[in-house]
Amino acid sequence: MSGNTFGTLFTITTWGESHGEGIGCVIDGCPAGMKIDMDAVQAEMARRSPGQSALTTPRKETDTVNILSGVFDGITLGTPIAMLIKNNNVKSKDYSAVKDLFRPGHADFCYSKKYGIRDYRGGGRSSARTTAAIVAGGVIAKQILSQMFNIEIIAYTKSVLNITADINPLTVTKQKVDSNAVRCPDENKASEMEKLILDVKSQGNSVGGIIECVIKNLPAGIGEPVFDKLDALLAKAMLSINAVKGFEIGDGFEATRKLGNENNDIFLPDETTLTNHAGGVLGGISNGMPVVFRTAFKPTPSILVPQKTIKETSNEIVDIITEGRHDPCVLPRAVPVVEAMTALTLCDLCLISLKDNMFKK
Amino acid sequence: MSGNTFGTLFTITTWGESHGEGIGCVIDGCPAGMKIDMDAVQAEMARRSPGQSALTTPRKETDTVNILSGVFDGITLGTPIAMLIKNNNVKSKDYSAVKDLFRPGHADFCYSKKYGIRDYRGGGRSSARTTAAIVAGGVIAKQILSQMFNIEIIAYTKSVLNITADINPLTVTKQKVDSNAVRCPDENKASEMEKLILDVKSQGNSVGGIIECVIKNLPAGIGEPVFDKLDALLAKAMLSINAVKGFEIGDGFEATRKLGNENNDIFLPDETTLTNHAGGVLGGISNGMPVVFRTAFKPTPSILVPQKTIKETSNEIVDIITEGRHDPCVLPRAVPVVEAMTALTLCDLCLISLKDNMFKK
Amino acid sequence: MSGNTFGTLFTITTWGESHGEGIGCVIDGCPAGMKIDMDAVQAEMARRSPGQSALTTPRKETDTVNILSGVFDGITLGTPIAMLIKNNNVKSKDYSAVKDLFRPGHADFCYSKKYGIRDYRGGGRSSARTTAAIVAGGVIAKQILSQMFNIEIIAYTKSVLNITADINPLTVTKQKVDSNAVRCPDENKASEMEKLILDVKSQGNSVGGIIECVIKNLPAGIGEPVFDKLDALLAKAMLSINAVKGFEIGDGFEATRKLGNENNDIFLPDETTLTNHAGGVLGGISNGMPVVFRTAFKPTPSILVPQKTIKETSNEIVDIITEGRHDPCVLPRAVPVVEAMTALTLCDLCLISLKDNMFKK
Amino acid sequence: MSGNTFGTLFTITTWGESHGEGIGCVIDGCPAGMKIDMDAVQAEMARRSPGQSALTTPRKETDTVNILSGVFDGITLGTPIAMLIKNNNVKSKDYSAVKDLFRPGHADFCYSKKYGIRDYRGGGRSSARTTAAIVAGGVIAKQILSQMFNIEIIAYTKSVLNITADINPLTVTKQKVDSNAVRCPDENKASEMEKLILDVKSQGNSVGGIIECVIKNLPAGIGEPVFDKLDALLAKAMLSINAVKGFEIGDGFEATRKLGNENNDIFLPDETTLTNHAGGVLGGISNGMPVVFRTAFKPTPSILVPQKTIKETSNEIVDIITEGRHDPCVLPRAVPVVEAMTALTLCDLCLISLKDNMFKK
Repeated sequence: MSGNTFGTLFTITTWGESHGEGIGCVIDGCPAGMKIDMDAVQAEMARRSPGQSALTTPRKETDTVNILSGVFDGITLGTPIAMLIKNNNVKSKDYSAVKDLFRPGHADFCYSKKYGIRDYRGGGRSSARTTAAIVAGGVIAKQILSQMFNIEIIAYTKSVLNITADINPLTVTKQKVDSNAVRCPDENKASEMEKLILDVKSQGNSVGGIIECVIKNLPAGIGEPVFDKLDALLAKAMLSINAVKGFEIGDGFEATRKLGNENNDIFLPDETTLTNHAGGVLGGISNGMPVVFRTAFKPTPSILVPQKTIKETSNEIVDIITEGRHDPCVLPRAVPVVEAMTALTLCDLCLISLKDNMFKK
Repeated sequence: MSGNTFGTLFTITTWGESHGEGIGCVIDGCPAGMKIDMDAVQAEMARRSPGQSALTTPRKETDTVNILSGVFDGITLGTPIAMLIKNNNVKSKDYSAVKDLFRPGHADFCYSKKYGIRDYRGGGRSSARTTAAIVAGGVIAKQILSQMFNIEIIAYTKSVLNITADINPLTVTKQKVDSNAVRCPDENKASEMEKLILDVKSQGNSVGGIIECVIKNLPAGIGEPVFDKLDALLAKAMLSINAVKGFEIGDGFEATRKLGNENNDIFLPDETTLTNHAGGVLGGISNGMPVVFRTAFKPTPSILVPQKTIKETSNEIVDIITEGRHDPCVLPRAVPVVEAMTALTLCDLCLISLKDNMFKK
Repeated sequence: MSGNTFGTLFTITTWGESHGEGIGCVIDGCPAGMKIDMDAVQAEMARRSPGQSALTTPRKETDTVNILSGVFDGITLGTPIAMLIKNNNVKSKDYSAVKDLFRPGHADFCYSKKYGIRDYRGGGRSSARTTAAIVAGGVIAKQILSQMFNIEIIAYTKSVLNITADINPLTVTKQKVDSNAVRCPDENKASEMEKLILDVKSQGNSVGGIIECVIKNLPAGIGEPVFDKLDALLAKAMLSINAVKGFEIGDGFEATRKLGNENNDIFLPDETTLTNHAGGVLGGISNGMPVVFRTAFKPTPSILVPQKTIKETSNEIVDIITEGRHDPCVLPRAVPVVEAMTALTLCDLCLISLKDNMFKK
Repeated sequence: MSGNTFGTLFTITTWGESHGEGIGCVIDGCPAGMKIDMDAVQAEMARRSPGQSALTTPRKETDTVNILSGVFDGITLGTPIAMLIKNNNVKSKDYSAVKDLFRPGHADFCYSKKYGIRDYRGGGRSSARTTAAIVAGGVIAKQILSQMFNIEIIAYTKSVLNITADINPLTVTKQKVDSNAVRCPDENKASEMEKLILDVKSQGNSVGGIIECVIKNLPAGIGEPVFDKLDALLAKAMLSINAVKGFEIGDGFEATRKLGNENNDIFLPDETTLTNHAGGVLGGISNGMPVVFRTAFKPTPSILVPQKTIKETSNEIVDIITEGRHDPCVLPRAVPVVEAMTALTLCDLCLISLKDNMFKK
């Protein structure tokens, strides 16, 4: 594999550059006979699409998903589902000013070093626009999980800069998450976050934060030891998302500051555990408790604050202001991306796990 | 793949249970014509082996690696390298008491739910003993990286519970890391950590911590967008290690508490960056700066402190003390495992990257 | 993988049904910096497209390839190349008559049994129309091979029914192959074949034959033992093509009728061999001689001759005439498909082989 | 992957050289909870082992399989099954004479060109001895298939040189196959073949032939379009076996000499077909009829008849007699190898097919 396919049995292959003809994906391994809810696909695209609130980039993309194959009369055929999303609102000339510059914190430099060529328009393949294809494919995965096991995946903004919300992952609802522009189900903190983001935006700066995600109703036994552990694949999935710099499951880094007897979760007669420090995963396999993990997003590197950088051709130092249309905070739009990558990961592992039941008594 | 193979072009497949005949691995994709330093293999095994200090489990395993194939007169043949490590010091009867119990914080419950059967002796496949095979295979990867690019990988204990060491990843040396039993190159903190671990051990308890790892001399351009990003694969690699609950690269979670202009690393005319908040990776591709990441280890769940748990057969609540031979703190022995998984990840990506140069001018 | 991706490092993922919106592919792993010759892409599509002569189906498809990503200013970016070919000349109502029938010799029955649903219009995913995506992707592979190693792949019709051409694989040229509608470089036999095919067509019947393919300038050392042998992957590639029932390399089945000393090829001082019974592959690895193999195509099952079959819903026996637009002989249009699958196979193996040179003296 | 792993969900990874410490394999993806019949494993090894009759090489190997992991109290754990077969009867000095020579028809030359190094002792990794690991792993696959679906795989010698047996694949039994040393269930032809092989052996020469294989009770719906077709994977599996030069399914090459209406199999009300020209596969998917295919083996290149060849170091022409212990005809011992590769292929595809039933009505 060369980096653009995720999964083993249920796979997504994505393609596309920010300012090319379009972006898209191919979902392979989708079981046949499932009814696809196209409204749900488009509703999920809207959660990720730009221009949805004052907190996001003003680039206008309706992000209409065209399913080109694999679905017949609304039912999956078992064959590859190709999805196409056209790039409409392309303003490539915004980028001509940075054609010869390496934007600080961006992948421009790395692409040039790796490939000897790069599509400088909007970051090309390194643009977060590519996550639209992930969200499109993720909805298919979500629908399989929902119909197969009633599995529900809910992500939400947990913190922005130093504002941390107080959220119970067990009672949070998708409705609550989507009730404000920040996608933070703690209303008071959400409103603080919103003010902060607008303030940062007014300064031409950007800000990061943490997205928490909970998986409900995942049965025990999902995840493959040793290398395809559920949490290992979730970590890979999360770090695949643009701007992500960290992943933790359950108590995560906080677990390093506890003793063994404080961190162990005690099993109860109903096979739940008294606490959930583990975040629903032991030895890489789900234990039937809610899976809870967090993903760290850096502040987006595209800012209007002037910075120094070098020219690609001469390595000469120059000033740069990253023009173009950018999000001051990527988290609200990253929430559906986190959910999509989670769904893709789980769907693959759940299909792989079917073989576990063959000789089980 | 079913979970026991890691990599695409350069792969490791591991096998083995804690108290079976032995454990081992097959390395496939190793380029031919490389001289294997068997002393280095065995020296690295010693860094991971039990019984090396008062801080580790007293299980005695020399962990001698037998290379059964793929090497002829000390030179790699390009064919699979099979490595076998016998289990010698097996005391399976230690575990008969927990045969019917789910040890808290362990994968016992998950394996039973997944497979309907488990090898209860020492945790079977979920035992950290399986990391010996990873270390053995990792040395081959290290030797390739070293001979190919002069790449060096150094991991060390960064924190234990609430004791955090002060270490400069750019100047740290392997010699310094191995100068004490904790594998923490900050001598003062190392000695504090050692006392803490022995204290925790005397209470029959356990403690976790953070291992930091630095990769030196990795050229820019390694890592595949979108899903096989360098940091995504490192995250997967780290979460594959027993007891790991979190991963972060560069400033990681701390980056969520900074503004865009504070977090961006400014390029300098020599193509380095002024700071290294990114930890050497942008857009999933190395930028030529040292790669720095951290891995969170929970306290090992095997403790002598009495806990409640349930019986597998009846779900009845009982008391459990996890007998057997355990590490009060896994970090000293996990340092070479972190290095090994890092080397395996890099070796695969470096070989995959060879194609990038085909038409590059 | 779920069957629609071919390759490891250089991969093609195809999608699409015969009468859906279109068909297409994603090429991943294409090295960056290569100039794409779009005229060559379209010229190759024309070799496979329907309606090119009286020997082929009258379905009219211009088969224009739209490259949606991965190419910038005519140069490959190293990112996935998505190719889209729209289905224009769709006459789905032709198929309403067979909606509830299993066409003899077709995959209808198998798709229904496997998936519980099938797109009956033109065979859906099982249609040979899907090979258009393979040809499109194959041209990219051909261009890499040509620029990398000057490798040339030439396939041609070797036999139709019982008419077998006399062709020297070492001197055959692409120009000669394309000089007649049958794509058989033996002019006399080509003209016999043409008459035969038209005669068979006039009876509403169909006919098969053998395509031979030669690979020139492939260096020695390509192919991976034990399971990814060059000839094993070519066999898989060929059997992936619709209507193929057999594969042989070098003397193939004829080699079973010779003694060891008759079959061995003697090495000469210039490292060629005196004969080429092996067809350029020994132990699964190329030996530097021309690679020569043959692929057996059955007569296409779509015929106008009345046959018996069963209804899907009732298993009742009925008469069937496979209406729709069909080729009386698929070989002329299959020649570029054989070349495309060969190119895709070689390109992957050649990129994988780059690592062989790392430590070679 | 680098050539030594076969399969996607159910995989075999083999390792080992002919005259190294041993050979072996790792089976990953075996469902948990299955009872392993070790007697059946060893009985199957005996069918492939050398020295079983006057028709085979006199090398003496008991080929005892040690299962090192993945099985606990005779039941599979769901974890990797590592199998080790030691090389006992190693006579490496037999090969010192050919150390610097490229044996005609052998892979020596190709390995040297590919890797710059080769283990010249007995052909190293290119030796047919490596198929012992395939047979060992194949028995696990056979046991899964048998317990899961009652699938039976029977291969047999169909022809040797120009002696072709008359065998009904539908009625042939394993007992009948093993009733003579040639493994040909047509007794009269078997006795002719035996005489021929002994005659060829007495001349120091070798002879090839065809093995036919039938799969019984395979349900309809197994095989993945487009690239992982059942017959495409069987072709790859067969060409992975040493000395194989061709593969055909159903009527194979003979189908190229028939008209469409002669070749189509007519469906009957019980969902069987009147004839089985297709060999049980349409569009790459099983149709429920017996799967029948044939594999062409060249005469083994190791012969005592003097031949010319070149020296590796000087390319000088010299005489060569391939000493060592060789089979005059590999077919009798290749029969279990064909069955093993078939079982490995089917087992993978059957496990992959489990997902097809998820939403099927």
